Amino acid sequence: MPTSNTRVRQQRAERTRSLIIDTAARMFAEVGFDGVSLNDLISATGMSKGAFYFHFSSKDELALATFRVKQRELITRLQADAEPSASASDELCSAMRRRARLIAGDPTMHCVVRLGADLSVRSGPGSEYASFQELGMRSISQLIERGVHTGEFGAHLEPRSTARAIFAWVVGMDSLSLLDSGGRDLEERTEEVLALLIPALRARPSTAPEPPIRNRTLKTNATKARN
Amino acid sequence: MPTSNTRVRQQRAERTRSLIIDTAARMFAEVGFDGVSLNDLISATGMSKGAFYFHFSSKDELALATFRVKQRELITRLQADAEPSASASDELCSAMRRRARLIAGDPTMHCVVRLGADLSVRSGPGSEYASFQELGMRSISQLIERGVHTGEFGAHLEPRSTARAIFAWVVGMDSLSLLDSGGRDLEERTEEVLALLIPALRARPSTAPEPPIRNRTLKTNATKARN
Repeated sequence: MPTSNTRVRQQRAERTRSLIIDTAARMFAEVGFDGVSLNDLISATGMSKGAFYFHFSSKDELALATFRVKQRELITRLQADAEPSASASDELCSAMRRRARLIAGDPTMHCVVRLGADLSVRSGPGSEYASFQELGMRSISQLIERGVHTGEFGAHLEPRSTARAIFAWVVGMDSLSLLDSGGRDLEERTEEVLALLIPALRARPSTAPEPPIRNRTLKTNATKARN
Repeated sequence: MPTSNTRVRQQRAERTRSLIIDTAARMFAEVGFDGVSLNDLISATGMSKGAFYFHFSSKDELALATFRVKQRELITRLQADAEPSASASDELCSAMRRRARLIAGDPTMHCVVRLGADLSVRSGPGSEYASFQELGMRSISQLIERGVHTGEFGAHLEPRSTARAIFAWVVGMDSLSLLDSGGRDLEERTEEVLALLIPALRARPSTAPEPPIRNRTLKTNATKARN
């Protein structure tokens, strides 16, 4: 029965891959990408080099896979705990708070923040890591869309660019939390962000900023030309 | 006249230091901290190793000094261009837009974003780099304080924690702009941030988020205990 054998081998390979990723997540979360060598990582899994290289050929490949698996896990856990009846702003607050608690309390989730910061400076436009933002962006964008649809958020909000701004906020908050407290103040920083973010989403267009000076100048010149 | 000679030597040393920092700023902005070796940096200044080491003993020391000088220069340029009669939100918008243009247009200013991201992941709580945030934080905090004082911004805003949240937003915006476009979309991202930030600052406390679930639960339990 080669099919059954193949399935058993696949399952075993998947379990081994998961074990490697969990070990890597803990180590990357603790000491960052540069703080750990591939040899240290291999030793920590208790595997032979040959067995390890069957799954990952480099530290970069392992780091990208680890970030991706843990990012997906974090977002899946946040979505699983969402209350379908909650308003969009309650759901946004609640997801941001659960996120901070998960990252603070679970080393493999903390890896999303620490390894994310490392991979971000190691990557650039068009990189695989850059494409990983899409998952977080999409979940924020859907929440904005829902809030705009129910009238809870301003109708002028464009879900995609709003999500891009919020996603940047989360990234910056994570990064400064790491720098200032090794991630320990993430819950406090999350409250500081929510205190500004929710009123911003609920506000009506009358309170939006003036267009850039350059556009205003152009407009003034156009008006002058007409007169 | 030893005093005069000392002054001449000091001025020459300062000019040399400035030259090194400007060269380093361009190189760090282009290829990041890891992309350039100390030998490359020394060669680019045209100096002998001995003369260079008189000013900086390591790449880390040079990177910190370069970031600090360019960060101060950026903030000084932004403050010099501020219109004293502008409202706090006009000044905030205008400073953020000038910042994006300066960073996009001047390689030595772009260094603040690129080298800042590199130094951030290389540093931690209590580091010299972590203390450099204070300069940006203070200038945002003063602007918030002014807006609250004139009644333009919500009276409930605490300048320091509001500035901390805004500063995080700027850091995240810079970081994603680097990742997605090498910094080329910074002006566009600045508009996305301002479109949410200004309404948030102008909003009144009625639109603020509910307190965290845990506090709410505590309150409910306390109410129950009293009944």
